[in-house]
Amino acid sequence: MSLNDARPRRVVNGGTSVNYGKEKPRDIVLGRNVHISCHEVTEPDADDEVTGEREAYMASVLARYRKSLLERTKHHLGYPYNLDLDYGALSQLQRFSINNLGDPFIESNYGVHSRQFEVGVLDWFARLWELEKNEYLGYITNCGTEGNLHGILVGREVFPDGILYASCESHYSIFKAARMYRMDCEKVNTLLSGEIDCEDFKAKLSLHKDKPAIINVNIVKGAVDDLDLVIRTLEDTGFAHDRFYIHCDGALFGLMMPFVKLAPKVTFKKPIGSVSVSGHKFVGCPMPCGVQITRLEHINALSRDVEYLASRDATIMGSRNGHAPLFLWYTLNRKGYGGFQKEVQKCLRNAHYLKGRLTSAGIGAMLNELSSTVVFERPQDEEFTRKWQLACQGSIAHVVVMPNITIDKLDDFVDELIERRVVWYGNGKLQSPCVAPDIGEDNCLCVLHK
Amino acid sequence: MSLNDARPRRVVNGGTSVNYGKEKPRDIVLGRNVHISCHEVTEPDADDEVTGEREAYMASVLARYRKSLLERTKHHLGYPYNLDLDYGALSQLQRFSINNLGDPFIESNYGVHSRQFEVGVLDWFARLWELEKNEYLGYITNCGTEGNLHGILVGREVFPDGILYASCESHYSIFKAARMYRMDCEKVNTLLSGEIDCEDFKAKLSLHKDKPAIINVNIVKGAVDDLDLVIRTLEDTGFAHDRFYIHCDGALFGLMMPFVKLAPKVTFKKPIGSVSVSGHKFVGCPMPCGVQITRLEHINALSRDVEYLASRDATIMGSRNGHAPLFLWYTLNRKGYGGFQKEVQKCLRNAHYLKGRLTSAGIGAMLNELSSTVVFERPQDEEFTRKWQLACQGSIAHVVVMPNITIDKLDDFVDELIERRVVWYGNGKLQSPCVAPDIGEDNCLCVLHK
Repeated sequence: MSLNDARPRRVVNGGTSVNYGKEKPRDIVLGRNVHISCHEVTEPDADDEVTGEREAYMASVLARYRKSLLERTKHHLGYPYNLDLDYGALSQLQRFSINNLGDPFIESNYGVHSRQFEVGVLDWFARLWELEKNEYLGYITNCGTEGNLHGILVGREVFPDGILYASCESHYSIFKAARMYRMDCEKVNTLLSGEIDCEDFKAKLSLHKDKPAIINVNIVKGAVDDLDLVIRTLEDTGFAHDRFYIHCDGALFGLMMPFVKLAPKVTFKKPIGSVSVSGHKFVGCPMPCGVQITRLEHINALSRDVEYLASRDATIMGSRNGHAPLFLWYTLNRKGYGGFQKEVQKCLRNAHYLKGRLTSAGIGAMLNELSSTVVFERPQDEEFTRKWQLACQGSIAHVVVMPNITIDKLDDFVDELIERRVVWYGNGKLQSPCVAPDIGEDNCLCVLHK
Repeated sequence: MSLNDARPRRVVNGGTSVNYGKEKPRDIVLGRNVHISCHEVTEPDADDEVTGEREAYMASVLARYRKSLLERTKHHLGYPYNLDLDYGALSQLQRFSINNLGDPFIESNYGVHSRQFEVGVLDWFARLWELEKNEYLGYITNCGTEGNLHGILVGREVFPDGILYASCESHYSIFKAARMYRMDCEKVNTLLSGEIDCEDFKAKLSLHKDKPAIINVNIVKGAVDDLDLVIRTLEDTGFAHDRFYIHCDGALFGLMMPFVKLAPKVTFKKPIGSVSVSGHKFVGCPMPCGVQITRLEHINALSRDVEYLASRDATIMGSRNGHAPLFLWYTLNRKGYGGFQKEVQKCLRNAHYLKGRLTSAGIGAMLNELSSTVVFERPQDEEFTRKWQLACQGSIAHVVVMPNITIDKLDDFVDELIERRVVWYGNGKLQSPCVAPDIGEDNCLCVLHK
């Protein structure tokens, strides 16, 4: 399995950090080209139009596929994707080739676009992060990785000789950007809580005082890098505001956090350069997408060397999916700030419910107060893990409680888990594993710790 | 307007090249943040759920939007997009969050994917370009730019100190890649026909004989870089096959060309490294997408420095749109090679028809034998140009005849153009412009040349 954006990166509680990026003895898959059983594209027979056989064949493939999607969607617990989609009102638009090519704010001659919706969505996010309409530039990206690639690129263009600093808990796309862009990169240690260790950050900054700093700040679920402390560390080390660029990787949690009481605040009132979040995670969208907001003043750095370009070059991609803005616009308009707040609260509540049910059943579990991710022992049976699409690492598994994860679904899951455990652990004859190193002694319910 | 992928880059005939990338006195748009009239996202009223007002408002916005999309789609002639979409059979899948995260050939724990369709599509393209199943790696990209970014990145990872060579007619994403990746880049002159000038290529290669060569070869509509001559030039200059990497930018024409008689052939039997084409252009797809095929042996270079990565890193993006493969699979299966061949022939035929109608009406027009793009005088009226979404440059405009452009539509267009010209040129009292510098004296029908 690739690490690509897919798995929640980290679950943190009680000073214990589980880092998916550091998983050790995993085989590096190089050069393997597995042709999984695929639906081959075959040449139609000459008489297919007459017999209708081709249409019938394809309809049956699609019907079976739809059935499997229903089943897979129903039993999904492990990824931070909201699978509760209700976009029937938009199906009338599927037949159009909607393309917002290039800059969202500059009209194209191509008329089949959705810029008027995209800009509405961008304004909403700019408002959320407190940047004025005429001071931001943003666009709807294809995924979180594109947002990170964009943010780090803007940082590099603002400071061509800048050093990239990112904690080792950062999403792998940050290090990928460093490699793609040929930037010098300093990996910064993390605290046990998973957030960036500003002592180590300071020490590494001090090594390169002559070079500007480009910093990736993680705002991922569980523990969040302390943005204020990062900024203070920069200042204390002698970096004036015109000598650093901060990109905030919001991924999933960047959108949940504004609605969580007591959570630290991401705002452009602080000296940050860009924020990106995923659109298909908490909001929910049939295809991956994301939102990228950057200070307008920095975008010009992207277009500085205009030899090859006769216009502002604000986006990484050229042709851009015009359907994603419609999905986001539709959901934001229906739910509003208020709706999201309710959903975040529901997720946190349901996550507490799950933790409660697990511990009542004698299964140790952990839940951070700002998170809706529940961590517990890894099921002994791979088939069970696959069925519920749990993300696992070492001896633990986790569930990300998204808005589509209902109490009923959690009950089904826990009931089945309890049932299976009887088989795995021989009705108490075998000991269930100790997971204290992963979730802390307080949370573990093994023989030793309960 | 941004140059992003949007406009056909070049129209070539009779030794005349029109380069959209070189358009001179265009204002560089920097820092402008035009808030076009957008559909704002507003907070729902507390009683919206009761009154249904919010739903009604959104339904009316969407109904108006759909109407405008219908009108814009009907009157579109200028971009190389096939807008004839018939994907009703797939609307049942819109409610699923389909994500092919990471590598198409490595299964993910996330079950709601469409890898089995993606791999079917990739196999089809690998077969088209004659690369064995177990020798390629590819994926379905978000657009042509991602394909080019990927191809050039693979080239750079294979030859970290390689020099990038690209003709000045190359798509701007190639030069963008050079900048992003901090590569040394040599712009190579073009012949009058628009294809790469291999004399100049040789001269520039000779300057850097000590460095490997990474070459972008254009396979765009109209004139196509002579791949065989490029390879011969490399060999003649002393570059062995293990000292160069060729990426073929197929854009629109890479998919039409295999079906055009006498067109030069792109195949992995020649020493090329990667090919990319757009999926939303000739095939037609509701959202932008593309296909990227690379020799498997080269992909490992991408994953060479695996410090940050525990798996093969084959794709630029992490989360990937799982719907696009379904659209491509559906169309390829329905049409097959045979269907595409018929459509290409229809496009060429209709393009000839358009040229014929224009010249009969005394309007000079040009059409390359391998192309379905018709070039003629720029309309005097911007409203008319916008209505038909013509791509214009200097004193000429053009129409790209795609499968959705019917004879009826072309008739409507020409009839309206003739009608308007009576107004613009006062029924012959004023002279229509000479466009010989753009389309050649043979094609121009101005007073001087007819």
